[in-house]
Amino acid sequence: MKIEIWFEFASTYSYLTVSRAEGLLRDTPLTLEWKPFLLEPIFRAKGMETSPFVLDEVKGAYMWRDMARRADRHGLPFVRPAIFPMHSLRAARIMTAALSEPWRGAFARGVFSAQFARGEDISDPAVLMTVLKQHVSGPGHWLKLAETEKVKEQLRDTTEAAEAIGLFGAPSFRVGDELFWGDDRFEDAVAWAVENPRT
Amino acid sequence: MKIEIWFEFASTYSYLTVSRAEGLLRDTPLTLEWKPFLLEPIFRAKGMETSPFVLDEVKGAYMWRDMARRADRHGLPFVRPAIFPMHSLRAARIMTAALSEPWRGAFARGVFSAQFARGEDISDPAVLMTVLKQHVSGPGHWLKLAETEKVKEQLRDTTEAAEAIGLFGAPSFRVGDELFWGDDRFEDAVAWAVENPRT
Repeated sequence: MKIEIWFEFASTYSYLTVSRAEGLLRDTPLTLEWKPFLLEPIFRAKGMETSPFVLDEVKGAYMWRDMARRADRHGLPFVRPAIFPMHSLRAARIMTAALSEPWRGAFARGVFSAQFARGEDISDPAVLMTVLKQHVSGPGHWLKLAETEKVKEQLRDTTEAAEAIGLFGAPSFRVGDELFWGDDRFEDAVAWAVENPRT
Repeated sequence: MKIEIWFEFASTYSYLTVSRAEGLLRDTPLTLEWKPFLLEPIFRAKGMETSPFVLDEVKGAYMWRDMARRADRHGLPFVRPAIFPMHSLRAARIMTAALSEPWRGAFARGVFSAQFARGEDISDPAVLMTVLKQHVSGPGHWLKLAETEKVKEQLRDTTEAAEAIGLFGAPSFRVGDELFWGDDRFEDAVAWAVENPRT
């Protein structure tokens, strides 16, 4: 029984999901598969130059208020960073390079906390180094590995796969062929996976 | 303590909210204020000719699957009607005319059931007559009243108010100045209203 969590480091609601995923799944028989991908190419393919929350100011204003309430509900600190959306490419590549590492979930949480609990710029290698240092002795290795062709291609493949299976936002969850979109569907996705153990 | 439910008769997720609203609020001290409005003018003001679920086919496909799952979760029958979105103007005007009537909630549920439980066309006066007949002895009176200038203007005013307070989708909830969007925020809105009794 597997649940895939598709997320984007620049996505506000992905912060909520990634921060609570390992805790929420601990008491289930489910295996978690992280799927870091980029939303920008998917938005661009639809003619959108940036996040819908920037393109539609009214919707954006609502999102920030909703995020503050939802973070509070989940007991997570939350600030609105000066930059939105942030350039998430480097963070996504590091996560892609680290997908087999036991600290991958903690790294993802660390990047999201830097961004949405402290307002730090996650496109800054120094910020990513600081997060990496908490988990590995040689963080420079991971920054270098993240910029190799193999890792770049792997992230491109995951992003293309996201579009191919019908994803249009983050976070999204996949259980077998079943898709769920949004942090507010996380519990539904988990329940679906537990109730449909053949997936 | 008041909770406003802003809804659009053509909106799939409004079906979920309207169908369970009076039941959900029965055990709370909250007063429910129905706010039927039209989404089309709000979409058009943003340059969208129709529902985002039609404009974005991938998002639309997801919505129909999500709706089936959510309706099932709430124990509501659900079919995908042949027409989407339906012309909801007539239904919204009748609801506007009937806002002081004790059967207004049941009428709204009846219209949504016709559309999303049986796939009937709610722009058809005969369909609306059938729903009205279950609640009033002279349904023709309400169809006529719905087409008076006073009622038309009242619906226009509500729609303009929706845009003015920052609504961009349906259902939405307002508690004091606090906005909540989506059937999946209904419980949050109710909890907010109960916990903030001054609103």
